[in-house]
Amino acid sequence: MKKLINDPFDFVEESLDGFVLAHEDLIRRVGKRAVARVDAPIEGKVGVVIGGGSGHLPAFMGYVGPGGADAAPIGNIFASPPAKPVLEATLAANGGAGVIYSYGNYAGDVMNFDRAAARAGELGIPVRTVLVTDDVASAPPAEADRRRGIAGDFFVFKVLAAKAETMADLDAVEATTRKANDATRTVGVGLSACTVPANGKPTFGLPEDELELGLGVHGEPGIRRSKIVPVDRLVDDILEIILADKDYRGQDAAILVNGLGATPYEELYIMYRRARQVLEGLGVRLRQSFVGEYVTSLEMAGASITLMQLDEELHDLLAAPARCPMFVQMGGRRG
Amino acid sequence: MKKLINDPFDFVEESLDGFVLAHEDLIRRVGKRAVARVDAPIEGKVGVVIGGGSGHLPAFMGYVGPGGADAAPIGNIFASPPAKPVLEATLAANGGAGVIYSYGNYAGDVMNFDRAAARAGELGIPVRTVLVTDDVASAPPAEADRRRGIAGDFFVFKVLAAKAETMADLDAVEATTRKANDATRTVGVGLSACTVPANGKPTFGLPEDELELGLGVHGEPGIRRSKIVPVDRLVDDILEIILADKDYRGQDAAILVNGLGATPYEELYIMYRRARQVLEGLGVRLRQSFVGEYVTSLEMAGASITLMQLDEELHDLLAAPARCPMFVQMGGRRG
Repeated sequence: MKKLINDPFDFVEESLDGFVLAHEDLIRRVGKRAVARVDAPIEGKVGVVIGGGSGHLPAFMGYVGPGGADAAPIGNIFASPPAKPVLEATLAANGGAGVIYSYGNYAGDVMNFDRAAARAGELGIPVRTVLVTDDVASAPPAEADRRRGIAGDFFVFKVLAAKAETMADLDAVEATTRKANDATRTVGVGLSACTVPANGKPTFGLPEDELELGLGVHGEPGIRRSKIVPVDRLVDDILEIILADKDYRGQDAAILVNGLGATPYEELYIMYRRARQVLEGLGVRLRQSFVGEYVTSLEMAGASITLMQLDEELHDLLAAPARCPMFVQMGGRRG
Repeated sequence: MKKLINDPFDFVEESLDGFVLAHEDLIRRVGKRAVARVDAPIEGKVGVVIGGGSGHLPAFMGYVGPGGADAAPIGNIFASPPAKPVLEATLAANGGAGVIYSYGNYAGDVMNFDRAAARAGELGIPVRTVLVTDDVASAPPAEADRRRGIAGDFFVFKVLAAKAETMADLDAVEATTRKANDATRTVGVGLSACTVPANGKPTFGLPEDELELGLGVHGEPGIRRSKIVPVDRLVDDILEIILADKDYRGQDAAILVNGLGATPYEELYIMYRRARQVLEGLGVRLRQSFVGEYVTSLEMAGASITLMQLDEELHDLLAAPARCPMFVQMGGRRG
């Protein structure tokens, strides 16, 4: 196992230590396995808590900060944070206006975040939860609420955090976050597995000349395997699957071409180029474009394409400034 | 060869196309193989041209924009841009106050940039060149001017660009850029090779249980190979080599822990943690910290550590705001 690590069982602890030290101007540690904005809780603002397993940086703690989330609990690699750090993050985020949880829809996360929400409720903190369910490949349309959350996390979190910054109330922040998730679809492609340090073995096998469409960010099975094809054809396939699920034609949209870890940025831009050609040809108006690593899977090779339909509210919230450890944006993006 | 590409010979062209489309609010294409800020040239400002081969994003074109460079010519993968796009970038950057070239010290780049500089001189544009020579492992101290430029590129470019933004004259911008390069040292470690698409084969071989200290970003041989060791020990070795070359003890410094492509961010933070412990123990005052992918080598696994000694000028210039396609920073960093 070729990794720049010490004891595999210290991986999460040590990377969290380093993260907190590197970004102490923006975030602080809360308890053993959570971080919060240095200025949280902010009185009267809806608290924003995002989270999930480790191994996905910049998700989740990379998005805590001004214009981002108030706090994030951190789990082991590819594992939900326990209820305790979720509750600690909740207390750190609570400014008296209630708290929203948002995270990818995985059974372990749902169980632990729900437990923390129940406990927070007992403490008089109202908590609402918006699950991210953007992964089209993970369940058919009739069971869309069972879908997993992958790179669409970024769009949903960004909108949620920006809406909370407007000092809107809990109902309004929840409604806008649900709208963002409903407007968002992702399909990914995996070229290689990654290795969870404590296991020491790749999460799955994939022959040297094959790729897997719809692969999940923890190696969950996708829709189909095929031989490596030119990426333009792959982008066409991805967009066809997305648009069959939700018709973005004639709509304003934001796009995210997300790298899973080992895929060079140059290749993400090649994908973006094709996606833009195809989508513009279909009458999708791309008003905001993001290309880079936003939700990763350790050193997995592969990428995903996410679309979010934009109304003026979502457009403005996505474009709003943010100053997080791993995402900085000045206001006034193109569009 | 598992890559998200079309014809390998279209790689550079297509990724450049995608890049320009994705960031058309900030940059525009100049000729066939260069990009420039949309607002360049800026009258009376020293023009800043950085560049080099493809395969290193965010370097080089990811650093063109407000607070960054004015223009960047783009070469083939791991190959210098020809003199023609360098000259085109120069003309796009020239606001009448002269132009500075800064790039990593490689023979091919020196030849082509020098050619363009000569031609620019004939056209009445004074050009100065500051080579980046931060790679301690690439030549002994007595031949420090033969050293290659690697991740230290980022620090030197950032200082250069910010100094030019102050509307300082050509002599002053050149002097500060030289000071930044003189203050900067990097040592890297490689865990795996990468594959140049048009070749289809890894750039070098490295046994499954070995790493190479001092490896160059194009696979140039390093100082020594060893079995995989705990990363804390590796960080200690890297810092020992750097500090033997330049003594940062008792000084203010900035640090960059840079990933080469396939190394997870979590591992970079583990490295940062150790580096910070060691450096603080030695009395180095880290005033600015950067952890992420700043100068990559396609999908190479590995990382480097860069230190730059800071005086107040370098500190302020490094901390100045920037809004580039792949590097955004608000003003007022920690320190």
